[in-house]
Amino acid sequence: MSDVVARLRSALGARVRTDSETLAAHRRDWWALAEIRDLLGRGAPSPLAVVRAESVDDVATALRVCRSSRVPVIPFGGGSGVVGGIEARPDCVVLSTRGLDGLVSLDSRNLTASFRAGTRGGDAERRVQQEGLTIGHWPQSVELSTVGGWVATRAAGQFSTAYGSIEDLVLALEVVLPDGEVLRTRETPRAAAGPDLRQFFMGSEGTLGVMTEVTFSLRPLPESRRLAAFHFATFDAGLDAIRRFMRAGWRPPVVRLYDATETRRQFPKECPDGRNALLLVHEGPVGAVAAEVDGVAALCSDEGGLAANPSAVEHWLEHRNQVPSFRELNERGLVVDTIEIAATWDRVMPVYDAVVASLREIPEVVLASAHSSHSYRSGTNLYFTFAARVEDKARMPAVYQECWRRTMRATIANGGGIAHHHGIGRVRREFLRDEVGDAGVGVLRVLKRALDPDDLLNPGVLVP
Amino acid sequence: MSDVVARLRSALGARVRTDSETLAAHRRDWWALAEIRDLLGRGAPSPLAVVRAESVDDVATALRVCRSSRVPVIPFGGGSGVVGGIEARPDCVVLSTRGLDGLVSLDSRNLTASFRAGTRGGDAERRVQQEGLTIGHWPQSVELSTVGGWVATRAAGQFSTAYGSIEDLVLALEVVLPDGEVLRTRETPRAAAGPDLRQFFMGSEGTLGVMTEVTFSLRPLPESRRLAAFHFATFDAGLDAIRRFMRAGWRPPVVRLYDATETRRQFPKECPDGRNALLLVHEGPVGAVAAEVDGVAALCSDEGGLAANPSAVEHWLEHRNQVPSFRELNERGLVVDTIEIAATWDRVMPVYDAVVASLREIPEVVLASAHSSHSYRSGTNLYFTFAARVEDKARMPAVYQECWRRTMRATIANGGGIAHHHGIGRVRREFLRDEVGDAGVGVLRVLKRALDPDDLLNPGVLVP
Repeated sequence: MSDVVARLRSALGARVRTDSETLAAHRRDWWALAEIRDLLGRGAPSPLAVVRAESVDDVATALRVCRSSRVPVIPFGGGSGVVGGIEARPDCVVLSTRGLDGLVSLDSRNLTASFRAGTRGGDAERRVQQEGLTIGHWPQSVELSTVGGWVATRAAGQFSTAYGSIEDLVLALEVVLPDGEVLRTRETPRAAAGPDLRQFFMGSEGTLGVMTEVTFSLRPLPESRRLAAFHFATFDAGLDAIRRFMRAGWRPPVVRLYDATETRRQFPKECPDGRNALLLVHEGPVGAVAAEVDGVAALCSDEGGLAANPSAVEHWLEHRNQVPSFRELNERGLVVDTIEIAATWDRVMPVYDAVVASLREIPEVVLASAHSSHSYRSGTNLYFTFAARVEDKARMPAVYQECWRRTMRATIANGGGIAHHHGIGRVRREFLRDEVGDAGVGVLRVLKRALDPDDLLNPGVLVP
Repeated sequence: MSDVVARLRSALGARVRTDSETLAAHRRDWWALAEIRDLLGRGAPSPLAVVRAESVDDVATALRVCRSSRVPVIPFGGGSGVVGGIEARPDCVVLSTRGLDGLVSLDSRNLTASFRAGTRGGDAERRVQQEGLTIGHWPQSVELSTVGGWVATRAAGQFSTAYGSIEDLVLALEVVLPDGEVLRTRETPRAAAGPDLRQFFMGSEGTLGVMTEVTFSLRPLPESRRLAAFHFATFDAGLDAIRRFMRAGWRPPVVRLYDATETRRQFPKECPDGRNALLLVHEGPVGAVAAEVDGVAALCSDEGGLAANPSAVEHWLEHRNQVPSFRELNERGLVVDTIEIAATWDRVMPVYDAVVASLREIPEVVLASAHSSHSYRSGTNLYFTFAARVEDKARMPAVYQECWRRTMRATIANGGGIAHHHGIGRVRREFLRDEVGDAGVGVLRVLKRALDPDDLLNPGVLVP
């Protein structure tokens, strides 16, 4: 094992780090359970070494050296994943893409921009905004996550209802395969040239290759923006309003419906107690936005929604990327996490009811709530939040896992999809079979085995 | 080989056909070169047998029996492909999905409809229109092609600029894998649960599995429709108008720009000689359409487009699915075909100029023209038509292949993508490496080998 470090050093010099600070910073992602385990002194170990790749060749070299030594490699972007997609082991090398930073090319006529995969989302977005353009992708992690990480996890951003998720925004990819070969997909707006190779790597969570460059199909910054808010007596009525305006073809980029519990917590001033707040951001050409504002408002009113001052939307826009510190909550005896799922319209309320009820049966659970934040013609997502008060910290992992298990089981039992946009990682791995079936797991396995026969790239993640 | 027919018969009874009429009807698809070869008496041979599957079990059984006998299987939907994706051999079994016909379920609240994969497109569309809904997918072959074939070939329809191509319309799939296992993807509006398994089979052209059911995410029929037409002095100016209104976020479902040659041929009455006609269909809520009509018109005028009577659009809507008979043209000494490619905006005119010039260098070529019919933020497609007058019929295949070779080479040399929506089949197979690179071909090969180790499913197609 120390042999692999020596071999990496001779090939990559100072890009190979073994100082304890760097190693410690690459032990894990932001998974809430990893944080709890740290608190309990049972945290993820440090890796053997961290390779900070600065070029595609560095990535290929690191993969080849580790492969020939049969040493596992864990690709690491921003480290902001929340499902345990990164967890070092003492015998592994972490391959950081953060040194692959910055713009490669930008074409404002083609509306394309290529970034090296380790570029942080916020930096990429600011760069294209200098040209009056936008990527249109705002995950809450935008200032931490990398563009390569967005692809690896199949991310969705807060404005996805109009602009789409990562699969709708990426024009081309460069990926280094487990054997060190470099795959570049063609920069073309659409192709029928066999299966879409980009899709093999979107959602591969570091198990099939290492992203090194991402080319986006951009948009101009919107000509205008209007905010709107509606209050509904029930969560169900709010969902039905969304369903109806999605059906009519309206596409506000932001569509967020909070259940009464979350509305009370997030917008105590803006929304009367017991109501369910719907927050909308409309963007586009002035005329199109005007038509959309009217069209959506009519359908919301029709479902009993009361038009409200959109100050709650302003509040959300300002504070949307603030997240509480898990560590601080854990130290106060609270176990907290969010779980996003998706479902067709007929299954949303059954999933919602079943998950909330199932979580509330756990004695320690003090909060179980949800909002919907990404909608489609045929359904929407639900973003659950749970909190449990666990006096005996040693029990925190068990309570945490019980909350996840119940949410996953209630979702599956009611026909929902187990993951909307955070990925599988380790926390959902045992449930993937319920999502894609034996045959689906089988296809993922044969592809994995064919590309990475020794299971060296991010082992333990995604495929059960 | 006769052994396999006996084994299929004992498992599937009368669904196994060996009468000469059925065999002859399943020899090939609509590839223009296959038509020429027929004329020359060198047509594709009949298969050993045709299995007309009527259930998923029939498909699985046929695949298992053929696999155990190592007999190749060619999945066959509507047979309307145009790139040689189907070509029987005397030792193969053709597996027709046409007996897998009709609606499985329709949910007008979820906007979902599941059809058995052999359902013809027109039948599926008429069925959902009974509920006031639409699939929104109109390939020219809509009355011939099957919904499973749409998926297998990565089809795009005439209204794709607003409604998307097949990958944007399919919610879930059922596929029988080469070993007879059945894969069903989950009916969920979006997932981050590993790579999107649907995408492994979209564009697989019968090489990775047999589609047995397709679930669409539908739309309501549009509330309103408006037609518009503009005439441009140059093809380039017309393309720039499209680029600008796509950039602004307008999405007319139909956006068709014909070069001057095609305009003269298609719309001799409607458009002054030498001009390039742009045909538009706007659809959606009345207010949204009104805003779009104005927004698009302003940008077309700005690029020098002259607003014209939309009678050309009406003419196109009425006649859009009429195609000439290749056989009749061939008998008159004409070799004719269409070739669709795609390119980012900066590459469209270079590809157009190079392909047209390169085709016109062939002495027999009497026509080389193009239109654009599917647009995106970052580029568009070009749909070339060529015609060559070849007195010596024996030379027709050579001239045909020279036209294709030149179009592919000029596209590649100018940075275009070689296939927009017809697929690879046999006619583009030698060029796939230019599209996806050695690494891309490598990934497709390992997947193929892993799922179909004996290369029995539609061998000779797609992967070089």
